[in-house]
Amino acid sequence: MSTGERMWNRIADLYPIPRSLTGDGVRATLRQLQAEIPLVIHEVPTGTPVFDWTAPREWNLKEAWVKGPDGKKVVDVRDSSLHILGYSTPVDARVSRSELDEHLFSLPDHPDWIPYRTSYYRETWGFCLAHRVREALPPGDYEVHVDATLGDGSLTYGELLIPGESDEEYLFSAHVCHPALCNDNLSGITVAVELARALARVPRRWSYRFVFAPGTIGAITWLARNEDRLERLRGGLVLTCVGDRGPMTYKRTRRGDAEIDRTVAHVLHHSGAAHAIEDFSPLGYDERQYNSPGIARDVGCLMRTPHGRFPEYHTSADNLDFVVPECLEDSLQCLLAVVEVLEGNRTYRRLKPKGEPQLGRRGLFKSVGGLPAAQREAALLWVLNQADGSRDLLAIAERSGLEFGVVAQAAKALLETDLLDG
Amino acid sequence: MSTGERMWNRIADLYPIPRSLTGDGVRATLRQLQAEIPLVIHEVPTGTPVFDWTAPREWNLKEAWVKGPDGKKVVDVRDSSLHILGYSTPVDARVSRSELDEHLFSLPDHPDWIPYRTSYYRETWGFCLAHRVREALPPGDYEVHVDATLGDGSLTYGELLIPGESDEEYLFSAHVCHPALCNDNLSGITVAVELARALARVPRRWSYRFVFAPGTIGAITWLARNEDRLERLRGGLVLTCVGDRGPMTYKRTRRGDAEIDRTVAHVLHHSGAAHAIEDFSPLGYDERQYNSPGIARDVGCLMRTPHGRFPEYHTSADNLDFVVPECLEDSLQCLLAVVEVLEGNRTYRRLKPKGEPQLGRRGLFKSVGGLPAAQREAALLWVLNQADGSRDLLAIAERSGLEFGVVAQAAKALLETDLLDG
Amino acid sequence: MSTGERMWNRIADLYPIPRSLTGDGVRATLRQLQAEIPLVIHEVPTGTPVFDWTAPREWNLKEAWVKGPDGKKVVDVRDSSLHILGYSTPVDARVSRSELDEHLFSLPDHPDWIPYRTSYYRETWGFCLAHRVREALPPGDYEVHVDATLGDGSLTYGELLIPGESDEEYLFSAHVCHPALCNDNLSGITVAVELARALARVPRRWSYRFVFAPGTIGAITWLARNEDRLERLRGGLVLTCVGDRGPMTYKRTRRGDAEIDRTVAHVLHHSGAAHAIEDFSPLGYDERQYNSPGIARDVGCLMRTPHGRFPEYHTSADNLDFVVPECLEDSLQCLLAVVEVLEGNRTYRRLKPKGEPQLGRRGLFKSVGGLPAAQREAALLWVLNQADGSRDLLAIAERSGLEFGVVAQAAKALLETDLLDG
Repeated sequence: MSTGERMWNRIADLYPIPRSLTGDGVRATLRQLQAEIPLVIHEVPTGTPVFDWTAPREWNLKEAWVKGPDGKKVVDVRDSSLHILGYSTPVDARVSRSELDEHLFSLPDHPDWIPYRTSYYRETWGFCLAHRVREALPPGDYEVHVDATLGDGSLTYGELLIPGESDEEYLFSAHVCHPALCNDNLSGITVAVELARALARVPRRWSYRFVFAPGTIGAITWLARNEDRLERLRGGLVLTCVGDRGPMTYKRTRRGDAEIDRTVAHVLHHSGAAHAIEDFSPLGYDERQYNSPGIARDVGCLMRTPHGRFPEYHTSADNLDFVVPECLEDSLQCLLAVVEVLEGNRTYRRLKPKGEPQLGRRGLFKSVGGLPAAQREAALLWVLNQADGSRDLLAIAERSGLEFGVVAQAAKALLETDLLDG
Repeated sequence: MSTGERMWNRIADLYPIPRSLTGDGVRATLRQLQAEIPLVIHEVPTGTPVFDWTAPREWNLKEAWVKGPDGKKVVDVRDSSLHILGYSTPVDARVSRSELDEHLFSLPDHPDWIPYRTSYYRETWGFCLAHRVREALPPGDYEVHVDATLGDGSLTYGELLIPGESDEEYLFSAHVCHPALCNDNLSGITVAVELARALARVPRRWSYRFVFAPGTIGAITWLARNEDRLERLRGGLVLTCVGDRGPMTYKRTRRGDAEIDRTVAHVLHHSGAAHAIEDFSPLGYDERQYNSPGIARDVGCLMRTPHGRFPEYHTSADNLDFVVPECLEDSLQCLLAVVEVLEGNRTYRRLKPKGEPQLGRRGLFKSVGGLPAAQREAALLWVLNQADGSRDLLAIAERSGLEFGVVAQAAKALLETDLLDG
Repeated sequence: MSTGERMWNRIADLYPIPRSLTGDGVRATLRQLQAEIPLVIHEVPTGTPVFDWTAPREWNLKEAWVKGPDGKKVVDVRDSSLHILGYSTPVDARVSRSELDEHLFSLPDHPDWIPYRTSYYRETWGFCLAHRVREALPPGDYEVHVDATLGDGSLTYGELLIPGESDEEYLFSAHVCHPALCNDNLSGITVAVELARALARVPRRWSYRFVFAPGTIGAITWLARNEDRLERLRGGLVLTCVGDRGPMTYKRTRRGDAEIDRTVAHVLHHSGAAHAIEDFSPLGYDERQYNSPGIARDVGCLMRTPHGRFPEYHTSADNLDFVVPECLEDSLQCLLAVVEVLEGNRTYRRLKPKGEPQLGRRGLFKSVGGLPAAQREAALLWVLNQADGSRDLLAIAERSGLEFGVVAQAAKALLETDLLDG
């Protein structure tokens, strides 16, 4: 089984779990991830102040259905967790067809798709359904049943720290609050898990932190509880919509030229594949929180097709068919390449910096193995010319047009001589 | 009557007045403006030192004509103030056809147009006329009559200060030395008057100064007499050629990225209309003086078709047909939008800057009225994200791509909450 | 005889001399140049430490040939100095056809061309020949004869300082180690000689240094022996491949925006001819050494078609037909224009900087002779506006779009008035 298939299967396993902003769906999701990575699950009690917010009430749904005039169920959350308006309040009532209609959500332009809707901050109830089904509902009396609890409880998030030589960290963050939606954001979750597994297997220079939390309030909660750690946060990425067939898309940090920005741009450029790089905006996912002016951490957002730009977004069509093993794998490869640059990026200083040194005498032409001779020599000469203590290897790669790995390999060979200061 | 028509009518009223660098034509023009705005008229005696110059001698023309061999007038300044070479010295003589010809100016390429010519710094006399008329002049003796005075007097300019909350000022400057030429520069004069009237009607944060002065020497004179005020001059615009059908054209200040440059660029960009933005050059109108290295004030130049780039420039074809009420009005609207940005542009600091705040709880989604919901939310989020005390609202508008007014409206709503420091 | 023809003839004279990294060929070449310019010839003994290197052993070749099975010479260095692998060790042996083949170099893609090859740092012998000749060699025994000495001696380079008013210098550097190759680099040598002759004839503000040295080790040797002078080196150019029909190509210094970079870019831009400007890279000729991080002098590289990008490069086809008098002359003209800018580029400060000064009163419109009136006035106004002590004349030329000479002429006229501080 390929890594891509394993990531896709993980999505398939998580797909049926009825997630919301809080509640047992999130807990079940995180517990399932614990089978693969040693996630710490945090519970933050309802009402806990988190910056401008408080941790919300917890919502859990037992049952929700609508029965038609003939007594048969016409909508049932057992068929799809998308059928319920998220955070619906309990109701048990008989309503007319037209009264019911005020509580229904559907998509006239995509009559077979169920939309995803929530009402976190206004108390109401509602059902989402295919427009075709809605239109076929006959006049008459309907029985509406929502058996849910909305009350004190906690907000749940998962966190994993993979420590490295340094206690400075990079962050990967994925939101876990969406129900049966695959690209947004089971794709981000599964790729993050796979990346964590890969990082755990190798020695690391930096520490890596993974946060799986509900969108917005989850990231805000994590930030509020970890303010004292933020200084150690060198940068990071929000992972979302990384499973569809679209090209990789990177949204820069608020700063725009942070190391993470330069790194992702370099990796995408050398991927040879079509890709897009976009400026920061404060609309999007949890990069909004990490880049807020009082936090100001360099967290970009890695996507394939950005949320809101594919018609399947926030509908039942963002399903298992919409995410593709090969694309999940491609996203993971991009992240691994990003980590490789972060791990290897250092600033060196040339020793004996006057004129070129003799490379042949030190066996340097041969020591940078596996590369074509011309590229090998070019990389050595670029490092020797540019490494004056003011530029990191990534800057040398950017200026030379060479791939970071080639430059890093040359630097490594030079470090074993008397020509470079490590 | 539309504002554009009112501006056009003002041009029509001023058109017959025989203006020159100095003299009663300028005085009559400024007095006519006093009927609408409380202009202060300054008289600077001939010989007053003004930087590298001295105020010039005053020139007034009573009569000027040429009579043909048959005793009939072939050119008469009563028909057009353009017929006389500006600053012509008095003459009363009989000259041959060929002698006369050395004092005639016409345009072979535009045989029906009278050119506009002056001889401020070399004493001579001359007549400007249509080439077709010139060519029809028969051989024989001509009687030439110029009844003019050129002697001590004064240079005249008009000035209006509309005070605001702050004694820091923006300047609008229009040259008033051209005779019967409409786009250059009765258009600048009429738009400036209308702008002054509009500004006088509303409360203002900044003070606004309007200078109506002869070109070059007038601006130099104003600068020489107001050196102590220049520190308060935040920026400004020279207004010229703002009545023709061409697209708006903005010529930047010498600095190139001053607030006035960013403001005009923003307004033109969001106008949706074709426009051009050009770099500063020391060739042009009075922006030359305001941007001289020892003055160094941020004064750009707002035009439609720049002087010298329309064939009618400095000819009798720059007449009442050449300026258009709609275009005058469009230029005024641009200026009003510029002032709106200048008035509203401030630098704020986000309070509680960690993570996003709750907008709904503060009723913010509704308080930014009149805009589509998505734009309203975007503007709020952009201000909350970018307002860290280092960027003004214009910079936030520039980065977000939103119109300044939308951003300013969001800032205003936020100022009424605990989220922004005013 | 045109200058171009004189430069071409100099190439023709130098063409037959068998140059190598060291030895009598270099000496003979430099001595021949001494007939025209007062070159100082330096001899640096084998083994002298020069930064990371030592001066190499000296190599001199008396005879080298291969005789075929029939006793007839099939390759003889008397026919072309390219026939011998540079730095071949002595040999006198009978070898089989296949054994011989391991010591032969040819170009299958260009079967009539002899390649240029060296083996400076690995002791071996070899012959270079046309592929067509190689393929026609019959089986059998071959007699191989290389009569060469490789031992202690010296590295030879030539140097010329043309002193100016200032002891700050610009450097022109050309490599002299290539045998019968015209564009690379007899072209650089002949253009440098002509430039030196031209500079010697006129008064100079700056000093100019010319270095004719073997590639890499020669530049390194010169640098090692002149470290104390480097502070005085304001910039310079490596001259190579300046005789072919390709467009001028400039490779920037490591710094990228040094005065020499701006100067060459300005000259090429105003040449009106096609040209290319490329970023620095540490691959190339001796700019590698001058721009090494411990030296960090602003030395760019002026070429026509860059080395390695024309098929004739390092083959016998880089011959007298490949270099063209007109192109040599065009390269020289470019260099003379560069020197003109370097000589004339100064930073002035406007006096009486408030408003424009009266130009007419000072006769300035007439004093900038030979230019169209509009350009003359524009140049005066640009200098008066921009000369605030922060910008050199080249910057004013760049911003105004005017040619440096026009701006410099205006500045010169203004210096004779009370308007500019010299």
